[in-house]
Amino acid sequence: MTRAPDMPAPIMEDWPKIVLARPQMGENIGAVARAMLNFGLCGLRIVEPRDGWPNPKAFAVASGADVVLERAQLDWSLDAALADATLVVAATARPRYLEKPVWGPAEAAANIRAALAQGEKPVVLFGPEASGLDSDEVARADAIVTYPVNPGFPSINLSTAVALFAFTWGLGRQETSAPEWFRDAVSPPATQADLDAMFTHLERELERGRFFHPPDKTPLMKRNIRSLFLRARLTEQEVKTLRGLIKALVIGRGGRKVGDDPA
Amino acid sequence: MTRAPDMPAPIMEDWPKIVLARPQMGENIGAVARAMLNFGLCGLRIVEPRDGWPNPKAFAVASGADVVLERAQLDWSLDAALADATLVVAATARPRYLEKPVWGPAEAAANIRAALAQGEKPVVLFGPEASGLDSDEVARADAIVTYPVNPGFPSINLSTAVALFAFTWGLGRQETSAPEWFRDAVSPPATQADLDAMFTHLERELERGRFFHPPDKTPLMKRNIRSLFLRARLTEQEVKTLRGLIKALVIGRGGRKVGDDPA
Repeated sequence: MTRAPDMPAPIMEDWPKIVLARPQMGENIGAVARAMLNFGLCGLRIVEPRDGWPNPKAFAVASGADVVLERAQLDWSLDAALADATLVVAATARPRYLEKPVWGPAEAAANIRAALAQGEKPVVLFGPEASGLDSDEVARADAIVTYPVNPGFPSINLSTAVALFAFTWGLGRQETSAPEWFRDAVSPPATQADLDAMFTHLERELERGRFFHPPDKTPLMKRNIRSLFLRARLTEQEVKTLRGLIKALVIGRGGRKVGDDPA
Repeated sequence: MTRAPDMPAPIMEDWPKIVLARPQMGENIGAVARAMLNFGLCGLRIVEPRDGWPNPKAFAVASGADVVLERAQLDWSLDAALADATLVVAATARPRYLEKPVWGPAEAAANIRAALAQGEKPVVLFGPEASGLDSDEVARADAIVTYPVNPGFPSINLSTAVALFAFTWGLGRQETSAPEWFRDAVSPPATQADLDAMFTHLERELERGRFFHPPDKTPLMKRNIRSLFLRARLTEQEVKTLRGLIKALVIGRGGRKVGDDPA
């Protein structure tokens, strides 16, 4: 990139974060950074990059968006990358077996903007080039963002997918869009770390109770349970309440006391 | 691309044409083809590709959009690529010295759709990776399409730029958008070949008349004249009329007769 002398300082918004799960090619990470900064986004999180990090190919393709790559947060688990998030939007085709809100790009941008305005920490999650997000990753999301692609040729390049989101996000920057989707709770929203701990707790107790049967259906059953709770857009306080509820139920089952749970 | 057995045949719209002027990297041409087909476009014209054509790197990156590359029309001049076009929209930053309509992406898509509905042949013109369209190329356009980019980091990757157009085009496919911009002439619109011949004719006569002075201002003067006429969105009949008008003026100047002009 050549910076003209009269070029203003770039717009650099830290949120929403763009989270790349298991990206394969450094070139694509660089192209993502460029497309993000083209539309004023600079919060990038990279989870389990196949070829390690930092990757010189990413910097070569970023064409001057080095600042996005230099500030990028590297995570070796999706849990870590999502820990502080209160709204997770997954970019994927419409999922077949999960009940989640499905948003078009403009709707996603408006809803994320409304969430930000209420102090939430929204992230948009993109899967790896070849396969996209897997079912467990999609199950983590509060909502899906999907693009109106050609049904006969739907597979979008990773950096293109991020660019389409960033572009749509940028379009909404000047608009004062009405919050189409928001929570009006007094308690702050639960973070992904809160929710994760709750799900882990719940699933462990359910396993002890031989809930998951037959075994080959277990992953699907877990995803459906998570989806159900995620749709509720729980607050921090509600998560605490639910954990108390789980403990209370467990005590009744086998005589264990509140406080046995190590989490 | 893996085609699922239940995948429908892809949407493949031949118009508007995407014209790549002097593209440098085969990878980018392939990424353009993929992004086009993702949103149902398959009319590609490639002008003076730096590395020749066909280019195996383009096919590698197209990820299954080979049909777009196989059908692509290769042209060794922009004149040839635009010859049958009746509406040329150039993707570029807002030009400083040309008076042309400047459209946002949604506006461009709506106007191109309206033109198509009236039987026009619209093309969208994209410049090379490093430098974008030059002034003479931009001067050929009836209108500019520009994206709301970060003013501090405006340089978009070529395939991203095409993807943003194709995406916006696809968004409008289901909408019954009111024609915001159209011509309501009885005569068919002039083609670029008609207009080119007229400009060549006009400029030759202007040179003979020592109109272009000083010499270093000639290119700019020519562009401004072209822009002026292009804004008028001339019909075929109007171009004939103007050419007759030029001839008539020339006769008065030096005693030459109608019919001397070899074009």
